Amino acid sequence: MRFGVIGAGRIGKIHAANIAARGDCEVRFVADVDEAAAAALARATGGAVGSVDEAVGAAEIDAVAICAPTDLHADLIEKAARAGKAIFCEKPIDLDAARIRRCLEVVKETGAALMVGFNRRFDPNFATLKARLAAGAIGEAEIVSITSRDPAPPPLSYVARSGGLFRDMMIHDFDMARFLLDEEPVAVAAMGSALVDPAIGEAGDVDTAAVILETKSGRIAQISNSRRASYGYDQRIEAHGAKGMIRAGNVRETTVEFAGPQGLVADRIQHFFLERYAAAYRAELDAFVTASRAGQKPRPDGEDGLKASLLADAAHLSWRTGRRVALA
Amino acid sequence: MRFGVIGAGRIGKIHAANIAARGDCEVRFVADVDEAAAAALARATGGAVGSVDEAVGAAEIDAVAICAPTDLHADLIEKAARAGKAIFCEKPIDLDAARIRRCLEVVKETGAALMVGFNRRFDPNFATLKARLAAGAIGEAEIVSITSRDPAPPPLSYVARSGGLFRDMMIHDFDMARFLLDEEPVAVAAMGSALVDPAIGEAGDVDTAAVILETKSGRIAQISNSRRASYGYDQRIEAHGAKGMIRAGNVRETTVEFAGPQGLVADRIQHFFLERYAAAYRAELDAFVTASRAGQKPRPDGEDGLKASLLADAAHLSWRTGRRVALA
Amino acid sequence: MRFGVIGAGRIGKIHAANIAARGDCEVRFVADVDEAAAAALARATGGAVGSVDEAVGAAEIDAVAICAPTDLHADLIEKAARAGKAIFCEKPIDLDAARIRRCLEVVKETGAALMVGFNRRFDPNFATLKARLAAGAIGEAEIVSITSRDPAPPPLSYVARSGGLFRDMMIHDFDMARFLLDEEPVAVAAMGSALVDPAIGEAGDVDTAAVILETKSGRIAQISNSRRASYGYDQRIEAHGAKGMIRAGNVRETTVEFAGPQGLVADRIQHFFLERYAAAYRAELDAFVTASRAGQKPRPDGEDGLKASLLADAAHLSWRTGRRVALA
Amino acid sequence: MRFGVIGAGRIGKIHAANIAARGDCEVRFVADVDEAAAAALARATGGAVGSVDEAVGAAEIDAVAICAPTDLHADLIEKAARAGKAIFCEKPIDLDAARIRRCLEVVKETGAALMVGFNRRFDPNFATLKARLAAGAIGEAEIVSITSRDPAPPPLSYVARSGGLFRDMMIHDFDMARFLLDEEPVAVAAMGSALVDPAIGEAGDVDTAAVILETKSGRIAQISNSRRASYGYDQRIEAHGAKGMIRAGNVRETTVEFAGPQGLVADRIQHFFLERYAAAYRAELDAFVTASRAGQKPRPDGEDGLKASLLADAAHLSWRTGRRVALA
Repeated sequence: MRFGVIGAGRIGKIHAANIAARGDCEVRFVADVDEAAAAALARATGGAVGSVDEAVGAAEIDAVAICAPTDLHADLIEKAARAGKAIFCEKPIDLDAARIRRCLEVVKETGAALMVGFNRRFDPNFATLKARLAAGAIGEAEIVSITSRDPAPPPLSYVARSGGLFRDMMIHDFDMARFLLDEEPVAVAAMGSALVDPAIGEAGDVDTAAVILETKSGRIAQISNSRRASYGYDQRIEAHGAKGMIRAGNVRETTVEFAGPQGLVADRIQHFFLERYAAAYRAELDAFVTASRAGQKPRPDGEDGLKASLLADAAHLSWRTGRRVALA
Repeated sequence: MRFGVIGAGRIGKIHAANIAARGDCEVRFVADVDEAAAAALARATGGAVGSVDEAVGAAEIDAVAICAPTDLHADLIEKAARAGKAIFCEKPIDLDAARIRRCLEVVKETGAALMVGFNRRFDPNFATLKARLAAGAIGEAEIVSITSRDPAPPPLSYVARSGGLFRDMMIHDFDMARFLLDEEPVAVAAMGSALVDPAIGEAGDVDTAAVILETKSGRIAQISNSRRASYGYDQRIEAHGAKGMIRAGNVRETTVEFAGPQGLVADRIQHFFLERYAAAYRAELDAFVTASRAGQKPRPDGEDGLKASLLADAAHLSWRTGRRVALA
Repeated sequence: MRFGVIGAGRIGKIHAANIAARGDCEVRFVADVDEAAAAALARATGGAVGSVDEAVGAAEIDAVAICAPTDLHADLIEKAARAGKAIFCEKPIDLDAARIRRCLEVVKETGAALMVGFNRRFDPNFATLKARLAAGAIGEAEIVSITSRDPAPPPLSYVARSGGLFRDMMIHDFDMARFLLDEEPVAVAAMGSALVDPAIGEAGDVDTAAVILETKSGRIAQISNSRRASYGYDQRIEAHGAKGMIRAGNVRETTVEFAGPQGLVADRIQHFFLERYAAAYRAELDAFVTASRAGQKPRPDGEDGLKASLLADAAHLSWRTGRRVALA
Repeated sequence: MRFGVIGAGRIGKIHAANIAARGDCEVRFVADVDEAAAAALARATGGAVGSVDEAVGAAEIDAVAICAPTDLHADLIEKAARAGKAIFCEKPIDLDAARIRRCLEVVKETGAALMVGFNRRFDPNFATLKARLAAGAIGEAEIVSITSRDPAPPPLSYVARSGGLFRDMMIHDFDMARFLLDEEPVAVAAMGSALVDPAIGEAGDVDTAAVILETKSGRIAQISNSRRASYGYDQRIEAHGAKGMIRAGNVRETTVEFAGPQGLVADRIQHFFLERYAAAYRAELDAFVTASRAGQKPRPDGEDGLKASLLADAAHLSWRTGRRVALA
């Protein structure tokens, strides 16, 4: 498959490198308003610098990887859908649910295959947990507990345009909760505060938050977020059911342990998402390529993107209003 | 110290045995409406069967251990307070907050020393976690996560008169959250459902629940409860702050591990509270005796009992109404 | 059972306290050349100070606990055996195998029940490992690996009269190897050196040593000893067989773990034998009492004591001569 | 660097794929008596089938990767050395120490750079352990304990020509012991038996073995090998010193854990060397390329290969004769 890659930033580089490393895919065009960045990434991956129109619509392109800023996602998806390309788009589709819905209308009309980049579904640890859940290891998941903590908060400039922690950071956890609960949440209660950096609070956002979700049949998910963890990128999931509990933890850099007077010290966990989810990004791409080749719609799809965004909106509203929010 | 023990059931037996095992305490009277039970426990601990009046008020008694059914607690506390005894009472003081408040008035008037049996504060693992928190190991606790799961639900008859999961089971976790947050919660959001046994739902209660608490300064506690865990008595705490994360986990029966084709199998965790909290009950008694001897008020005290009950009431209300509940 | 306790030192105190704490046993006499020590221990355990003759031979005594210095063990065993008492003796019976053999002759002639204090067999972790081995968890144990490290070396004065590391410290591991292999070793190869303290080497002993044992059918045990471990009392066992591997590790003081920039720090292990083997000493006493009451010979017995000593002698010889030593 | 690869079997495939995956290296020739295997590997890695002479000596070749059967190693090393190529050779150089010595003479005369494939030095876990040791984490390593167990024994035909467990399997552990002890062993004691498969014993070999090594200053290494482990490829190292203990354990397939009635089950370990040492093979190649480019001699070198072989010979002799064997 020949890809057009839109966006040569941090996440664009990851996807482009993974595309280039596959024997069966190639990066044809890289587009970015920062031409130097586009040129460097094109050079590194064997592609050419192209315009957005080329990267999204050129005849020789089979698939588009949208790694541009969020506010361009929906437009680019529509453009690529109309051009008949397979579409991989980073999360979220848009910060506005109404805009997402209109975009998905276009996707539907054109019959385009759209995959949204909830990479954590493809982490080998979480994917194995999901597979064992699906195989009945614990029975139905009654309580799903998700902990996500970043090593350090993003720049304030990023926070300001991020849509807030619930839409920017916790959206991954909403997708994971839906993925594991196998049933749509119908109620959301959120609490949050700015404990890491008061400036985040002054910017109208939180850096520390907890949410409970409940599904129609009464299954519960708990989510815990912090924008800061002294010990690295904390990414853990636990699911509890009638037959037992299953969990997937952090990945340590090595298996080395030191025993000294203070106790037994296990090695650090992988520091951030580039290390922790390196395998997940490759597996995600593989799922996209495999489904596209087979003429199937890849998952997570646009509906998954929309539903995670609706949960994020509901959590944001719950936090702002101090009320529990029901979902349609 | 010479104790009168009221109640010769499961918890009465624990406390009476611990009193009798100390060189500096003795069980003088055991009172129970079930005279055979009282006689057996008196025999086992070297005491005598007595009436409630004797056990609470006899001149030779220094301290009263109230292990009777909950609906008798407040009356017994008042009686013992008026008799000038040091009082240890199992949690909760009462299911009704107004009744607790009246009881605590009497305690205050009489100047009695009252300790409420939140035994988990004295678990060596949780007590060590608290001590390290207090020593600044992680900075302020920003997110406290508490997981409590019982191996199996109690009989329905017990459920019916228990006051509900939030008041009967999660009350321990409310006390622990207060203990670790070092600040009073001002808001409670609760969700719950009956997933373990529909009959529990029909009885108007839940068996699976999650709660979020928030303090004035924005610290958050998450609590997760289930009335059933196939793997034993699941009792875990985690606290997250600027400098790191600290947690205390379950206690395994042994350190034995088996490596076979399915992986590495660590031993079972201690099955239920009698095993897991055996040391906690002894340490709790020791704290009571030590404080009483020194003429100090032991903690957790009546106010701690009241505040945990108010949190339980608020969580119950939040669950019933689907609203977040503010605390005065 | 009424006990005469010989020796009011560190180990005598442990056994006497455990005897006194049982409802069905009592300390009747405590004998020690240090009369103040004897008096203190008698007072603490409710017994009386007695002469060695009283403690070993008085008509009212049922059992003798020999906690005196090693060079008195054999004489005291013989005396107690001739007096018709049940005998518990700390390891080793003697540093000289010939003396052990003569002593066991007397035990045999008199039909006395003699238990030797290889307390580690009764550690709940190791006892569970043994039980699972016996139940076939891994098939036959093909490789048994034993690690024993003390937190710090004993005083040089102790080293000088200890018989050497192989007879004083590793003897426990020889017993454990026999216990787990279920077959007698027929060959021993030992290496050792003084790395912890050169003065130990100058005293003709080692503080760091490794041994391999082989049984007739080719099963192997590895033993590793050091007189020093910065992280506490390191006591681990592993057994490997056709169906898997089973191991028992150190016991941590609590389950508390701290995650910070350096990694995940589990709590310290129990510092030394008083903590680590507290439960083992109680279970050992229980086995002695139970067997004695039932008129059965308790294990480990005199033969076990002899065989461990023969292994220690062989290891010592192997170390001194640089040869592998065969056992008859 | 342009490589000639000799041998298109299992290990040849690993190295050729790693060479081909690097941007700065290429597979130029693949030579194998099995022409179909050579052709397949050449095709997969972008090289051409060549004769041994071409792969070792063609002018366009910079480096030779010797992955042929052991009995060809020494001849090929000499040939490549005389052709002035950088040489990577799988372990061992030869089963006969005299032959190794003659080969190393040629290497010395020609000034060739020779690296021997002790891949475990490059495992990220073991390399980190070594780095921390070198940084003084535990002080000097006083006791090094190495456990190596294969999931299943090789075919008997392989066993017959392998030189025996000590030279074929444990040679890796001898290299690791030297690597970690930082001092040459001067004495070896070995025991071994055929417990996994009697046919291995009938073929004059062992499948279960333990060895102790001692260095001049008294440091000790313990090695434990089995040709079978029901739980996968068991590869563990532990080092003990004055300041503590450091160890590196097995790598689990995922971090998933399941808690059920039998306990807490951690995931399987990586099954065999292809998975466990995938990163090590890449790092080994990188070290070879980096050193060769810098005009430096890579390590482990021919002397390392010789010394590990001499230890293997000594262990084999110790096992056969029942004597401890001294090394010059």
